[in-house]
Amino acid sequence: MFYIVGIGPGPGYITERAIQILQEVECIFYEDYTGPLDVATLRRYARVEPVKLARRDLEDESGRKIFECLQEGKKAALVTAGDPMLATSHAALITLAKAKGYSVEVVPGVSIICAAFSASCLSIYKLGGVATVTYPRGGVYSVRPYELVEQNLARGLHTLLLLDIRDDGVFMSPRDAAEVLLTLEGRERRGVFTRDRRVVVVSKLGWGGSVLYAPLGEIVQSEMEGPAVFIVPAGLNPVERECIKTFSK
Amino acid sequence: MFYIVGIGPGPGYITERAIQILQEVECIFYEDYTGPLDVATLRRYARVEPVKLARRDLEDESGRKIFECLQEGKKAALVTAGDPMLATSHAALITLAKAKGYSVEVVPGVSIICAAFSASCLSIYKLGGVATVTYPRGGVYSVRPYELVEQNLARGLHTLLLLDIRDDGVFMSPRDAAEVLLTLEGRERRGVFTRDRRVVVVSKLGWGGSVLYAPLGEIVQSEMEGPAVFIVPAGLNPVERECIKTFSK
Repeated sequence: MFYIVGIGPGPGYITERAIQILQEVECIFYEDYTGPLDVATLRRYARVEPVKLARRDLEDESGRKIFECLQEGKKAALVTAGDPMLATSHAALITLAKAKGYSVEVVPGVSIICAAFSASCLSIYKLGGVATVTYPRGGVYSVRPYELVEQNLARGLHTLLLLDIRDDGVFMSPRDAAEVLLTLEGRERRGVFTRDRRVVVVSKLGWGGSVLYAPLGEIVQSEMEGPAVFIVPAGLNPVERECIKTFSK
Repeated sequence: MFYIVGIGPGPGYITERAIQILQEVECIFYEDYTGPLDVATLRRYARVEPVKLARRDLEDESGRKIFECLQEGKKAALVTAGDPMLATSHAALITLAKAKGYSVEVVPGVSIICAAFSASCLSIYKLGGVATVTYPRGGVYSVRPYELVEQNLARGLHTLLLLDIRDDGVFMSPRDAAEVLLTLEGRERRGVFTRDRRVVVVSKLGWGGSVLYAPLGEIVQSEMEGPAVFIVPAGLNPVERECIKTFSK
């Protein structure tokens, strides 16, 4: 039996079912390269010492260590931050496990994608897609956030922007993200990410973080730390407008 | 202090933070008209007997009973299924509580919106919006699901369809939902909800339910019960296609 378990975006979000599995299985693996894993909570409930896996273990080696455990007839769990499937590439692992004849249970966790809407009282019904703000790779900036937000603004839809994780595991700060977006505006010049574009910043959810609604020109000077996500709202309805005011700066 | 707490889509999904609050507050209210509340779990952790509120208590009377508790200087929690903000109209309540000077903490829970994507290994990055399949009211069918899915299919985006809850609290079954969609096709005739349109059905998540990928023509003959949601997928990538096969009928 192979469990793939999300324990939420930060302390306090682990679910009853996740706890039950951590107390039951003989092998526990975790990864923290797709999100900010709450390792203290994981250790508090784990029946055995959790083993950290790197991206190469899961992708290049197709989760070999997990399958070694399963082959011995033991139960194994792979633990991730947030929801285990939404922002990760673990779907291939599930397909592989099923092809090898193992039962698989996915244990959904609180995802930052849904929780960011919940924390900012914006309507997820108007989510028009998700993109990631990335550091330039080899000097090249991804224009995907610019194009998606541009389309969604025209359609009155909100856009969720995830922020990059550096190769050394550091989460992009809201300031760095604002800087990337302003740089994109400097190149594209279609008025999407001007300094007065107001965005919602949900930072460090579950880790004593905050929700803020402020212009990019202010966020680029802020000291907030990651992990964080941005929501670029469009076409606010009266309830959203009233509620979001309470986070405004 | 006013807490608004989601305990997830079914048994096993309650979080550590939600449990902590239920053991701390002096007044506990809940509503089950926006989703399938796991009342057994709520009672197991509640320090005081939970009081059920109807839609009229929260909307017409603006949560009067909750504010009566808060006015006595006590801490109060309003508990909902899923995430407390995503599919409900409780944002107005938060705005009101803040206007009255109370501190508010939203405790995000596992939402069916995110969990349905997680359970079916479809990419939420391609979510193009959410609509609700409703029973006809006064003989009139809402064409919103038809129009949204039509737009999203053209753009290669997935659509999440929530299913109606009848006024007597019964959740629409997948069969009834398929029947509504086929009826819409009979009227609109643009090929969106044909009998061979394959959709993902996530039913009774956390309540021993299942995930199925099948044509509407089969779902309309199925015996699955609600609560359930549909995802109408578009533009599957290779990982999604492989993974979704494992649920296919």
